[in-house]
Amino acid sequence: MYNIIGDNMNIVDIINKKREKGTLSRDEIFYVINAYMNDTVKDYQVSALLMAICLNGMIEQEITSLTSIMIESGDTFDLSSINGIKVDKHSTGGVGDKTTLVVAPIVAACGLIVPKMSGRGLGHTGGTIDKLESISNFKVDLSNNDFLNQLKDIGVAITTSSLNTVPADKKLYALRDVTGTVSSIPLIASSIMSKKLATNADKIVLDVKVGEGALMKNIEQATLLARTMVQIGKSFGKETVALLTNMNCPLGTSIGNGLEVREAIETLKGNGDENFKELCITIASYMVSIGKGIKVETARSEVVNNLNNGKAYEKFLEMVAAQQGEINNIDISNKTVEYRALKSGYLNSIRAFELGKYIMKMGAGRETKEDIIDYGVGIILNHNCGDYVNKGESLATLYVRNEDIDTKLLDDIFIIEKNSKKLEPLIYDIIK
Amino acid sequence: MYNIIGDNMNIVDIINKKREKGTLSRDEIFYVINAYMNDTVKDYQVSALLMAICLNGMIEQEITSLTSIMIESGDTFDLSSINGIKVDKHSTGGVGDKTTLVVAPIVAACGLIVPKMSGRGLGHTGGTIDKLESISNFKVDLSNNDFLNQLKDIGVAITTSSLNTVPADKKLYALRDVTGTVSSIPLIASSIMSKKLATNADKIVLDVKVGEGALMKNIEQATLLARTMVQIGKSFGKETVALLTNMNCPLGTSIGNGLEVREAIETLKGNGDENFKELCITIASYMVSIGKGIKVETARSEVVNNLNNGKAYEKFLEMVAAQQGEINNIDISNKTVEYRALKSGYLNSIRAFELGKYIMKMGAGRETKEDIIDYGVGIILNHNCGDYVNKGESLATLYVRNEDIDTKLLDDIFIIEKNSKKLEPLIYDIIK
Repeated sequence: MYNIIGDNMNIVDIINKKREKGTLSRDEIFYVINAYMNDTVKDYQVSALLMAICLNGMIEQEITSLTSIMIESGDTFDLSSINGIKVDKHSTGGVGDKTTLVVAPIVAACGLIVPKMSGRGLGHTGGTIDKLESISNFKVDLSNNDFLNQLKDIGVAITTSSLNTVPADKKLYALRDVTGTVSSIPLIASSIMSKKLATNADKIVLDVKVGEGALMKNIEQATLLARTMVQIGKSFGKETVALLTNMNCPLGTSIGNGLEVREAIETLKGNGDENFKELCITIASYMVSIGKGIKVETARSEVVNNLNNGKAYEKFLEMVAAQQGEINNIDISNKTVEYRALKSGYLNSIRAFELGKYIMKMGAGRETKEDIIDYGVGIILNHNCGDYVNKGESLATLYVRNEDIDTKLLDDIFIIEKNSKKLEPLIYDIIK
Repeated sequence: MYNIIGDNMNIVDIINKKREKGTLSRDEIFYVINAYMNDTVKDYQVSALLMAICLNGMIEQEITSLTSIMIESGDTFDLSSINGIKVDKHSTGGVGDKTTLVVAPIVAACGLIVPKMSGRGLGHTGGTIDKLESISNFKVDLSNNDFLNQLKDIGVAITTSSLNTVPADKKLYALRDVTGTVSSIPLIASSIMSKKLATNADKIVLDVKVGEGALMKNIEQATLLARTMVQIGKSFGKETVALLTNMNCPLGTSIGNGLEVREAIETLKGNGDENFKELCITIASYMVSIGKGIKVETARSEVVNNLNNGKAYEKFLEMVAAQQGEINNIDISNKTVEYRALKSGYLNSIRAFELGKYIMKMGAGRETKEDIIDYGVGIILNHNCGDYVNKGESLATLYVRNEDIDTKLLDDIFIIEKNSKKLEPLIYDIIK
């Protein structure tokens, strides 16, 4: 897969260069990734370089080189046999983020192609694939042919990748995870974008989550990440738009795999949480806008129309059927426990990160890759941030396998205060 | 050797802390070193931490902790059975630096104990042990008992370490060497001082070389390193003085193992290069000054006296005899090649670093640890920096095994210019 270059290169020289704030050439980055994949450069050398990148950064040219070299480390999808404009979306991950389940069918209902590769969840956030697996028999590992055929037939498919895409990112990410080198904008941006670009859609909309439940804790960092990813997309000739959206509170009312699918269906039927619906409409509108080359306002009318006339929901049902899922058989536990307000006041905060971890520990998520998920457990929020609540009122309904669950930890997650606080906006910024 | 602590510690948290410019606690550093020695923390994690230290530094308290924890990773010498004050010296390494061979016997002749652990050379600088091995049969690996007995008998011994001192430094240094994490003042200082302190002398004089032939290329960096090492010494209750000395030009007239021993002997006999003699007298004076708690001027009189009356040279001969060396049998090649001036002018520079590498490649040094040294090859400088030289005059005599040697490379090392340049001082600063 790689040509052999860099015979006269030395990994220590390259590390020294980045340690001294130098700019790595494309050949140097190529050498590092190539030699790391071949095990001629060692993990202890790459981790030192990654730390130097974390602390000294990378300029645009280095980030573009790294992204393209990572893509070249594996296979890419060939969508050229499919007519129409292919639009992809990606979320950096939040608590209760089932947006893809709603947005993908809406956009397909608007006549665009949505070839969506998704992943499984790890840690406090869930993965779209896990959510879909709560639907009985839903096939999440489409072959390349089935994927292409489904896109041709109904315009939308959500699956894990059947190809060996971006193996360099997999190897690098595993190393970053255990060496304290995750939180680097250039590394995060190139990791996300290499995977998106390997899918080969024509246009990309990114949902960059900001807040305590997200990877990016503040607007400045999130803006920088969004700008970096948009720039990468453009340098590959793919129009890319990023939305900076609020992840200080959980998204929508449901968290947990089966429960989130049910909420997505409600939203597709025109019901459900207004905040969540608004986010889905906005993301879908940008996808349709760049996909069709029309104004966002015009795109929004189309999106709302296809939501209201039931076509988006129909598209979802078509997709579930095409992937052999039994829509009437979604795994949701039948045992529930109420979590009630300790006092009256304003529910000023639901600490999304802590809640995500709580629900992960209930069994809805994975602490390590090997953990097995219980699709049926989770939480429905009966109130969200900003509501006035009365003492004793149910704040959340926990869907459990065992009613003995300890809800004491939730006392530090649902923050009730005397005075109301100003809520942050749903969407902070749009970066094109 | 270690207690088990840090059950609740996590290496990634510690790396993250240093990446975010935090201060590591003694327990955290202890955990890292302990777990690294036990292989429960991996080299790829330690190298990421080392890079974070290179870029974000360490404060005094962290450096002291690291030094003491590294010392505790292995054995230390017990010199308590030896009466008298033990004074050690260390040079950060230069080209033609045979100072120890002269200084150690002078200081012993002044009545102090000089328990000198030395090492072998690597790269462009030589090692004292290699130099001594050019003396036929000289025993460089004294047992602990022989070392102590020799110190009791004659007050001076130069040997490799017979104990397992500072294994943590050996393991860390090997990792730093291949991960671009050598050049960090806290890491260099703790590495040097952990080894010095494991020898357990009462007082320490450090010769920090500055200039193009040295590890420290400028005064600022050298001053910082010197201050850091002096501070470490003091925090262990050992009076420590550092001299910042010039390494822009080679030291003395000889470079190469046997040749350097011969020059050291000439210096001990009161002859030889004045610059080199002055450096030896200065270093010896500081060792005697702190060793006896007397003024430097007073110490200097003693030093000069013992040099002039032949007692220092006698002490050297006693040491060679005690370590079974045959003083009349020093390996020096009998084939020579002259290197002549290409033009007339001022010899404004002899590029020490490049010359060191040239002589290493002649066979006098090691490019890798496995290389075998030729003790008999080297160079005698017939002129040193600052001299006016005439075209065709011999600048250097090369001691070779094969007269076919390519001297063309020396044209870029011996820099002859029309106008004379001001020479830098021999000693820049004294840091106490």
